[in-house]
Amino acid sequence: MLHINSESIEKMESRYQANLFNTISGFKSANLIGTADKNGKTNLAIFNSVIHIGAKPPYLGFILRPTTVERHTYENIKETNYYTLNHVHESFIAQAHQTSAKYDREVSEFKACGFEEEYLDNFHPPYVKESKIKLGLQFEEEHLIKANDTILIIGKILHAYLDEKLISKDGSVDISEAGTVTISGLYEYLKTTKLKKFKYAKP
Amino acid sequence: MLHINSESIEKMESRYQANLFNTISGFKSANLIGTADKNGKTNLAIFNSVIHIGAKPPYLGFILRPTTVERHTYENIKETNYYTLNHVHESFIAQAHQTSAKYDREVSEFKACGFEEEYLDNFHPPYVKESKIKLGLQFEEEHLIKANDTILIIGKILHAYLDEKLISKDGSVDISEAGTVTISGLYEYLKTTKLKKFKYAKP
Repeated sequence: MLHINSESIEKMESRYQANLFNTISGFKSANLIGTADKNGKTNLAIFNSVIHIGAKPPYLGFILRPTTVERHTYENIKETNYYTLNHVHESFIAQAHQTSAKYDREVSEFKACGFEEEYLDNFHPPYVKESKIKLGLQFEEEHLIKANDTILIIGKILHAYLDEKLISKDGSVDISEAGTVTISGLYEYLKTTKLKKFKYAKP
Repeated sequence: MLHINSESIEKMESRYQANLFNTISGFKSANLIGTADKNGKTNLAIFNSVIHIGAKPPYLGFILRPTTVERHTYENIKETNYYTLNHVHESFIAQAHQTSAKYDREVSEFKACGFEEEYLDNFHPPYVKESKIKLGLQFEEEHLIKANDTILIIGKILHAYLDEKLISKDGSVDISEAGTVTISGLYEYLKTTKLKKFKYAKP
């Protein structure tokens, strides 16, 4: 078994290190975050860091890196307070990955990457029409991570749109059946196969 | 398409709501976090909220809920500053899920759930011997999420242990090949199949 330690990390080639530590944390969620500035100019970007924060009330979080791509998302959220989160399905992984390219501010990734904007129930930012599971969120709080100047953004789910057939009797959404994918690292997309659903564990 | 909004969320049955919002964020990572208090009493608990924070230097984060199970992990990290993070593989999902049960403090989930403690390179907390990808972390910072009193814990990776064959030329770890699983919601474990590895996207 290979042992990587602080000394060997110091000596790693930069891209090698980025790939290693982006894959070693385990599988990630795949979501497109849709935003619009106050004038309605839209932006769409893929995020692999969306996490569950709480269910009652429903909160989600995601990590923003201080890059050009993600800065547009951040600025639109801070300007308007709202954003949408749209599952990435197997049928459009290439288009979804393409949203990670550094487009100029004037370019909307919706158009550039082949997605249709969908406006629902007077919510300011657009949803991704092609996505079968979409959420409308309101900005709640942010935390600057001192270690590396990334930002944790927390939002409250105000709206959820999905096919009722995807919801089991117990409330759980069958995201595998929906074709939602998972991501390893920055570049690899995978589909899932159910192994086992357990119950609430007791000693 | 079903529309769930703030009003319908208000009326949801509690377990239904928990399952719905635990599954709707997308796929999650599956890791066992190993800790020990200053006297060496060990604890092991499954976490589905581990996320990548940064690669250079390497940081990971995870969310702690103020529950009995997770409190032992929290107290041990705060007491000793160190913890281990061990991938959950298909071969031991039942045992891994069992660590989420509320065992008394005197009970070590390593023994109760059938895992072997492994001590490597004088690191205080134990690794999970059965896991093929294991990380040793040092506590870096924490953030209290005001919305619901959960805590984001950030740690720096000091050690990584894995089979060298799992690392590709570009540095990425083949976690699918390692049999690492992903989680949907609180109870469902899934394996993955690669769809496509893309390149760095350009406009």
